[in-house]
Amino acid sequence: MFEAVELDRKVSKETFKAKVPELRTELLELQGLLAEADFPVMIIVSGVEGAGKSEVVNQLNEWLDTRDVETHAFWDETDEERERPHFWRFWRKLPGRGRIGILFGSWYTQPIIDNVFGNTSDSELNVQLNHISELEQTLSHDGALIIKFWFHLDNKTQKQRLEAKLKKNKHRPAVAKFSKHYDAFARTSARAIRMTDSGHSPWYLIEAKDKRYRDMTTATTLISAIRQKLATSADRRHSSYVHDAMAPEEESARVTILDHLDVEQSLSSADYKKQLNDYQSRLQELTWAARNKGLSCINVFEGWDAAGKGGVIRRITGATDARLYRVISVAAPTDEELAHHYLWRFWRQIPRSGYMTIYDRSWYGRVLVERVEGFARQDEWGRAYQEINDFEERLVERGIVVNKFWMHISQDEQLRRFKEREKVPWKQYKITDEDWRNRDRWDDYKAAVNDMVARTSTSFAPWQLVPANDKRFARIQVLKTVCERYEKLL
Amino acid sequence: MFEAVELDRKVSKETFKAKVPELRTELLELQGLLAEADFPVMIIVSGVEGAGKSEVVNQLNEWLDTRDVETHAFWDETDEERERPHFWRFWRKLPGRGRIGILFGSWYTQPIIDNVFGNTSDSELNVQLNHISELEQTLSHDGALIIKFWFHLDNKTQKQRLEAKLKKNKHRPAVAKFSKHYDAFARTSARAIRMTDSGHSPWYLIEAKDKRYRDMTTATTLISAIRQKLATSADRRHSSYVHDAMAPEEESARVTILDHLDVEQSLSSADYKKQLNDYQSRLQELTWAARNKGLSCINVFEGWDAAGKGGVIRRITGATDARLYRVISVAAPTDEELAHHYLWRFWRQIPRSGYMTIYDRSWYGRVLVERVEGFARQDEWGRAYQEINDFEERLVERGIVVNKFWMHISQDEQLRRFKEREKVPWKQYKITDEDWRNRDRWDDYKAAVNDMVARTSTSFAPWQLVPANDKRFARIQVLKTVCERYEKLL
Repeated sequence: MFEAVELDRKVSKETFKAKVPELRTELLELQGLLAEADFPVMIIVSGVEGAGKSEVVNQLNEWLDTRDVETHAFWDETDEERERPHFWRFWRKLPGRGRIGILFGSWYTQPIIDNVFGNTSDSELNVQLNHISELEQTLSHDGALIIKFWFHLDNKTQKQRLEAKLKKNKHRPAVAKFSKHYDAFARTSARAIRMTDSGHSPWYLIEAKDKRYRDMTTATTLISAIRQKLATSADRRHSSYVHDAMAPEEESARVTILDHLDVEQSLSSADYKKQLNDYQSRLQELTWAARNKGLSCINVFEGWDAAGKGGVIRRITGATDARLYRVISVAAPTDEELAHHYLWRFWRQIPRSGYMTIYDRSWYGRVLVERVEGFARQDEWGRAYQEINDFEERLVERGIVVNKFWMHISQDEQLRRFKEREKVPWKQYKITDEDWRNRDRWDDYKAAVNDMVARTSTSFAPWQLVPANDKRFARIQVLKTVCERYEKLL
Repeated sequence: MFEAVELDRKVSKETFKAKVPELRTELLELQGLLAEADFPVMIIVSGVEGAGKSEVVNQLNEWLDTRDVETHAFWDETDEERERPHFWRFWRKLPGRGRIGILFGSWYTQPIIDNVFGNTSDSELNVQLNHISELEQTLSHDGALIIKFWFHLDNKTQKQRLEAKLKKNKHRPAVAKFSKHYDAFARTSARAIRMTDSGHSPWYLIEAKDKRYRDMTTATTLISAIRQKLATSADRRHSSYVHDAMAPEEESARVTILDHLDVEQSLSSADYKKQLNDYQSRLQELTWAARNKGLSCINVFEGWDAAGKGGVIRRITGATDARLYRVISVAAPTDEELAHHYLWRFWRQIPRSGYMTIYDRSWYGRVLVERVEGFARQDEWGRAYQEINDFEERLVERGIVVNKFWMHISQDEQLRRFKEREKVPWKQYKITDEDWRNRDRWDDYKAAVNDMVARTSTSFAPWQLVPANDKRFARIQVLKTVCERYEKLL
């Protein structure tokens, strides 16, 4: 692979001087257009040690209008980062729409280094690269333009460069190990590049021996990629389509998983009190034990309006030290959140190890309300199932327990509760016109829930459908599940 | 002090049951009003160990509509937090306008504990408490309603409670030390409360022996404080006034510090090249040395349009490894930023130890463009000087180097550069109608700069006025300053 970028390509000083003003002008024009566009640009700067990646980054920062550019170097991880899924540190730094992010290091660095130094096997590397492909696909489906640069040097040139660097600056971290493992690096890098080179986020291999050639090629590639993306109409960009099995209109053909649930299951008051007390004591102890062992837990609550999400959540938090949990009520996204992939706001809030996060509504809004109300296009909510599965898999992989509850009540029970809420002064705030509107779309929501469960109830993060006409029964079932998941893992 | 809250106050079960629905209704009504208001509510929950602070937090979360409430517990610091000024961890969690933040632990915990266990002297404690007062003043001047609860228990009750807790849950962190040092805690806490009890953020001492009394009193206090705040008109809230010395209209009476600067100082091309090379090599080494020692540096650039800020910044970044610095161009705030104190967005971006952050424009916008253009009210920019000084003092205290540069050119030189920019294609983006408008207000800006330097050039973070008609001279002067500040501290 790399022989194609060991050709001694050069650019003369004169050409460079003559061409740079044009390139700069063009870059700035494109940036102007980009600022109004609905997608972010992510530039990944990687390559062999000594190729001058830092110089390229500095050069880009000189040529671009830095007001819309963010440069992020990913090297020394903080403990806040280590305590979360590996991709968290990248998600938190991704640029928003209309902006350019220069990602120096990026998600490729660690997998390559780990493989070269024998910390991961080739098949482990493959898994990591698959996750990277999924991530890049998720981002590019959302519109992101991902431009991946690999700067290459032959072995001899690298050695010379690294030695010169070391001489020049004694404070720099040691880099000798890179040159010594040149071949191993080349082998692993080639594999990484090959496995992640895709139509939506291609690699650009650039020979880095001659700095002028390197920097001009980088700029020209950037210009062409951005120009092409801008020229593609938004419609064509969102072309991926979801094929769905189409059930006939007949009632019996439209039965959903919710229809199979016995919502009337109940618990006597005495039983409830006893069990509540029991599970809450267990939970209190378990949350401290989880904290001491660094085990995180995410509890997701979805369900019909008035199904009792709030009441269940309070039975959990009431048994948990306030230092150990956080409840996140999903409201309208802020403008920073709107400027990113819809999962970005949830990545932001992933707990550190040892803590519990409770979501009152969640990322499933994408395939529930956004689908039913048409806030998301079909291709958007259609691909969300897989994106969500990938997301949750990253969480579980990192050792986070993911519990997902759908609180289910019958339509009649909902009506009864709506009316009750209207009567009790401190419950009135809970009932709005929107709730009545949602109620009218009961069947659409039911279909959406059925799809959601079918597509996202995975072995690592299964859905639990909770019969909730009887609040006592529902609360105990949730508490029991949370306790048992903890107990299994502690 | 505490004898006033050791009175065995109680609320009967009947009263509690009868009153709670009213309280809840009232709290929810107020929350509805609050959501539309232009200020945040910060509830500080502190007090002796065993008083049930976690229970109070859970109770509030049960009574309030949690969609507008964020609960943050401050106890185990992360390394990202430790690597920044102490207040950073609080700033990053402060609620925005219209929201309620329950701060469990807060900025009071550590100073009190440190003093009790002899890690800080009383005079060190005083300094910390002063900084807390400044912080609370800063926030409340910006409109925040700060409600500080101190939950108290007598020694005997505390001992019983802690022993019971320990028996109940073996996973909880050890708490025996608190009871043993009861008197020392009481002494230090009393001092902390006394020194930070102010009109704008008063303490409420609440006896915590009887849970019903504790929780009802908390709710009632909260209701009354929010109600009172809502009743105060926004006009009256922003009443603090700045008294300024009024200079006569005469030209000679209006001389500013900028008039005393010789902008024509220059450097020959040969001298420039030699010195640039010299300082850039030094800087490269120094930034790595700083990184290895954990020394952070913040460089702030302000100056006239076209004064050459960008060029100077590129001379710094060009000599610095791209992993070690970040350039932040201050643009329009996002809605999350607008919902907070204007300094919040800058607190967000404070570098970890060992890194350099360069601000292309900065928090000084408050006393420059916002003052001149009337984007901030006089009382707002008027108090900003002190807020900025406090902010920078917190940075310097934490060992961060703060360099501040005002790039100064003459009005004629600016005109020449504007015209030049209009001619060069890749410089055109830099010149806008706004630049011409700003130019018309030259004298207003000059007065603002003079005030800014007078009020914020401190011993710990002095301003450097850089004569910049000659770009070469300006660049070398900045590089020299940055290098020398580093060298002094490394």
